[in-house]
Amino acid sequence: MSKITYLDYQATTPVDQEVLHAMLPYFSQSYGNPSSSHFYGIEALQVVEEAKSYVANFLEAKPYEIFFTSGSTEGNNLALKGVVRKKEASHIITVSTEHKSILDVCKQLETEGHSVTYLKPNPQGLIALEDMRKAINKNTIIISVMYGNNEIGTIQDIKEIGKIARENNVIFHCDATQGIGYEKIDVTDCGIDILTFSSHKIYGPKGIGIIFINNKLIDKKFISSEIQGGNQQRNMRSGTYNVPSIVGFSKAIELVKNNRDDNRINTLNLRHILLEKIMAETDCILNGSLQCRLPNNINVSLKGIDGQKFMEMISDRLAISNGSACNSGSQKPSYVLEAIGVPPNLIQSSFRISLGRPTTEEEVFECAETMISTYKKLYRIK
Amino acid sequence: MSKITYLDYQATTPVDQEVLHAMLPYFSQSYGNPSSSHFYGIEALQVVEEAKSYVANFLEAKPYEIFFTSGSTEGNNLALKGVVRKKEASHIITVSTEHKSILDVCKQLETEGHSVTYLKPNPQGLIALEDMRKAINKNTIIISVMYGNNEIGTIQDIKEIGKIARENNVIFHCDATQGIGYEKIDVTDCGIDILTFSSHKIYGPKGIGIIFINNKLIDKKFISSEIQGGNQQRNMRSGTYNVPSIVGFSKAIELVKNNRDDNRINTLNLRHILLEKIMAETDCILNGSLQCRLPNNINVSLKGIDGQKFMEMISDRLAISNGSACNSGSQKPSYVLEAIGVPPNLIQSSFRISLGRPTTEEEVFECAETMISTYKKLYRIK
Repeated sequence: MSKITYLDYQATTPVDQEVLHAMLPYFSQSYGNPSSSHFYGIEALQVVEEAKSYVANFLEAKPYEIFFTSGSTEGNNLALKGVVRKKEASHIITVSTEHKSILDVCKQLETEGHSVTYLKPNPQGLIALEDMRKAINKNTIIISVMYGNNEIGTIQDIKEIGKIARENNVIFHCDATQGIGYEKIDVTDCGIDILTFSSHKIYGPKGIGIIFINNKLIDKKFISSEIQGGNQQRNMRSGTYNVPSIVGFSKAIELVKNNRDDNRINTLNLRHILLEKIMAETDCILNGSLQCRLPNNINVSLKGIDGQKFMEMISDRLAISNGSACNSGSQKPSYVLEAIGVPPNLIQSSFRISLGRPTTEEEVFECAETMISTYKKLYRIK
Repeated sequence: MSKITYLDYQATTPVDQEVLHAMLPYFSQSYGNPSSSHFYGIEALQVVEEAKSYVANFLEAKPYEIFFTSGSTEGNNLALKGVVRKKEASHIITVSTEHKSILDVCKQLETEGHSVTYLKPNPQGLIALEDMRKAINKNTIIISVMYGNNEIGTIQDIKEIGKIARENNVIFHCDATQGIGYEKIDVTDCGIDILTFSSHKIYGPKGIGIIFINNKLIDKKFISSEIQGGNQQRNMRSGTYNVPSIVGFSKAIELVKNNRDDNRINTLNLRHILLEKIMAETDCILNGSLQCRLPNNINVSLKGIDGQKFMEMISDRLAISNGSACNSGSQKPSYVLEAIGVPPNLIQSSFRISLGRPTTEEEVFECAETMISTYKKLYRIK
């Protein structure tokens, strides 16, 4: 079997060779537990502290504001539960197109007596800031809005949301899992109090994430930990440090930092080629805003096509998604597309193509050819 | 600098070369997200399912009763919070020498209106089963007792505790992080409803753990998830599967299974040599039972010795612990030794030496020589 072109980088990314290379010594050679006070422990603690400093610098934060989690799902659970449960009957503002790790946590918190406003985006996937202002009430404790959407790539106006939060004395959490690889996010400048993201979406290992928490929230006890235990990480997140993955994550961030601008331009160019070809040769609709969009995301509905049949036909040539990969093989229609008003027949014929740093022009041509020829075959059958 | 002999295997272990070798293809080659429905995703899901089956077989459980976490700390949080928060004013029975990830969670749950009985062990570190029977009341929902203690190595009578739990219709959680590498634990035979352990204590990677949950608890909704999100793992623990670490963990378990008996005998022999030498040449006390003890643990108090000074003097030759490594460099006296009645002067002069699979007779001799000569130097100074 020839290689299947991978264009599902929003689901996960391969670990960069430089990242893996950086991790290797920490599995079997420098394997100490950073909590140990002997040589092996001190050696491990040092690399953890270096990684924290590096991440802090990357976000324009302080090293003691950086905490390692097992990924964005854990981070998002901590961001919301850690804040909301501090008070009774708290009010959360979020968006109906957020990731499940926000929406499912909101549902859980609703059962505990808290309330949630789910802002509805327009057909482009964008929320109206006026809606957000109106939604704020005296119990509003946190606003949680992702940077870039994992299905339709829509980028919200984070800086303006940060301003609204600040003006109203509300905590602002941003899930930057999608997007941190393409745009510099300065937490101070954007008014972000809590930021979460994952390593495995930026060519680092799976199973490791970061949560930035503004030190004021910790000092004023506005947030509690969710995983208690050995007092690691200022008691905000206990458990033995995952040293090799922390080192790998830090290296992945370094690679993002050093290549971000080139990578964004290159990805935008490739996406432009791909989208133009698909648009020219099929009857399709682009879901979500083209302007306010992650550079690596395409989400199109191919009119009149059976999505399942299409996926089967391309399966030996192309790895793309026709639903959010994080929904664990769920065949339910995408709630994100539903939320922006895409009708059911166009949801089932929608496909997410997400480009990555390793994507080549050749792969983009292959993808276009496969998409278009399969579309034509299926369209003819119909 | 010559190599420092590592005898702190209860804090963490190096990743076995076979484990690392098994993990490598899953970082950058077979890197799919198991939740994706294309080739890369299916390939990844398959290895996750194989690992689950392997672990289930290892514990005499069912594959759908196995869930991957980020480690024992997360697992212990889930075991207690997931069960206790299902009812109001639940009662927990545990032991005052449990790991911080049990005790700190109990403290948290007490602030939420639940109650906890902390059984007090005898000077050998063992609890009286009669105390446990007496502690059970109509609100008792869970008993949480670790298999082997991380500081003094004491092994409780898990099978009898399982019987008591079953007779009283109480859930039994066992933290088997210390001990799973030395003894077969059959969850059915031991009456264990929830079992937690970590990969990094058995020569697997850091940042991955397992929680076994008896399917009846899930079916009857006796336990809730703590990390919600993308619906992975039967909704018990959401978040992208950490594929390389799952593969590594499974391989680490295979190595445990294949070498457990030899490893136990070998470790017991080496510990016997080491303990005899230290006992013969120093004035010391063994903390905790010798009979009911993990084969790799020594915890001794060297009478009249300044523990800090001793640690400094051995630091370029020997990596051992004089406190629980999981307490993050904390200089507070060990609460475990306090709980079994060791006086403060003997707590500060206590040392944990923990042997591992790679430990050689030569290393044991070196350790004995370093311990004894340092003891004599310090004793003379005094």
